[in-house]
Amino acid sequence: MQLFYTPDINPSHPQYFLSEEESKHCIRVLRLDAGSEVQLIDGKGGLYNASIKDAHPKRVILQINSVVTEFNKRNHYLHIAIAPTKNIERIEWFLEKATEIGIDEISLIICQRSERKDAKVERLNKIITSAIKQSLKAYHPILNEAMAYDKFIAKPFEGQKYIAHCEDGDKTNLKVDALSNGRYLVLIGPEGDFSPGEIDSALQNGFKAITLGESRLRTETAALEACFEANFLNR
Amino acid sequence: MQLFYTPDINPSHPQYFLSEEESKHCIRVLRLDAGSEVQLIDGKGGLYNASIKDAHPKRVILQINSVVTEFNKRNHYLHIAIAPTKNIERIEWFLEKATEIGIDEISLIICQRSERKDAKVERLNKIITSAIKQSLKAYHPILNEAMAYDKFIAKPFEGQKYIAHCEDGDKTNLKVDALSNGRYLVLIGPEGDFSPGEIDSALQNGFKAITLGESRLRTETAALEACFEANFLNR
Repeated sequence: MQLFYTPDINPSHPQYFLSEEESKHCIRVLRLDAGSEVQLIDGKGGLYNASIKDAHPKRVILQINSVVTEFNKRNHYLHIAIAPTKNIERIEWFLEKATEIGIDEISLIICQRSERKDAKVERLNKIITSAIKQSLKAYHPILNEAMAYDKFIAKPFEGQKYIAHCEDGDKTNLKVDALSNGRYLVLIGPEGDFSPGEIDSALQNGFKAITLGESRLRTETAALEACFEANFLNR
Repeated sequence: MQLFYTPDINPSHPQYFLSEEESKHCIRVLRLDAGSEVQLIDGKGGLYNASIKDAHPKRVILQINSVVTEFNKRNHYLHIAIAPTKNIERIEWFLEKATEIGIDEISLIICQRSERKDAKVERLNKIITSAIKQSLKAYHPILNEAMAYDKFIAKPFEGQKYIAHCEDGDKTNLKVDALSNGRYLVLIGPEGDFSPGEIDSALQNGFKAITLGESRLRTETAALEACFEANFLNR
């Protein structure tokens, strides 16, 4: 069934008006007409079943027939902070895959060895939005603007904080350390890894060092591995 | 350190000659010279430490200094059979990621609902090769030519056989069913999933139906999820 992302929907209102762009898509491209059933997700857990009341090509009126709140609510909170890769496509597919598998929040961190110093959040957010539609997720992961590493790790976080790095040293792993149904923040470094200084300051800020296995993983693969582990351990 | 993939290396021979193309890359591009140390992987578990004896731009002679056999030998065997996606790039990144995370064999299966009926194995194999070099894997995953689904599932396989599909019905999952350090074959269907008939014939051929979680996953994400799970459960 056709799905629309409608973050501005009012749950208490029996009708919803599609934007001009989506109305055109709905009527001219999908060729839906009055009576056709569609689904809406608000990105905050709401999944709506609706039907087309007025198939106006510029202003489709939808009749809300039923709503499910907290649809497929997640049983843990996963926040991954990742250094944008030199090739931004690698972050793009991480966002698509992480959204499919399950993630709550993503932060972009600029590290000492980051080759890329910024990233267009708007474009990346569109990738997340199309992924929640594709995988029928009623919750829209939060994507935060890029921030300097030192500033980011000093921010408070209610939950378990981890840093995944490739340097030697004592490390735990999510399988043994992560509390089930918990809240986790995982730091993933740039292509050249975190600097020893960055690792020290993370540890001083209450982060635990973790390993994601023996394989040498690319930045985006390491982030997806962490995402997979957190979800799998809470299944 | 610079790494070369040398599947034709003879372990009992103290020297190795780089191909003209690799010699040129080694001397003209990387600008390595006599005495420079390099590493070689043979794709069969051998990791060699070597040094340049003769920096000839068309025929570099390497002196083998030491060899490690069964380097990072895997403790289980994972064979994933996947229907090539309409957009071949999605299979390409699955191959790259699965190689980084750990996989032994990949088969391409053509299913009833496959939109793509073939795939260029040679090109896909190059992606696997660059991934083993990037992630320092001494074993080169096997990639098999595309084969019709019915023919594939009738082939013998020593180990546990699974089919991941989205239809209703009794399903187990790898966490409860997969024996540790075992041999697993997992079938992943095309964008439109396996047909009910295909699922039935798999079950009749000794495959067990599994779920990869509650999320609605794309073909390549489902395959990567299975890859993650098999590796994680054997860590």
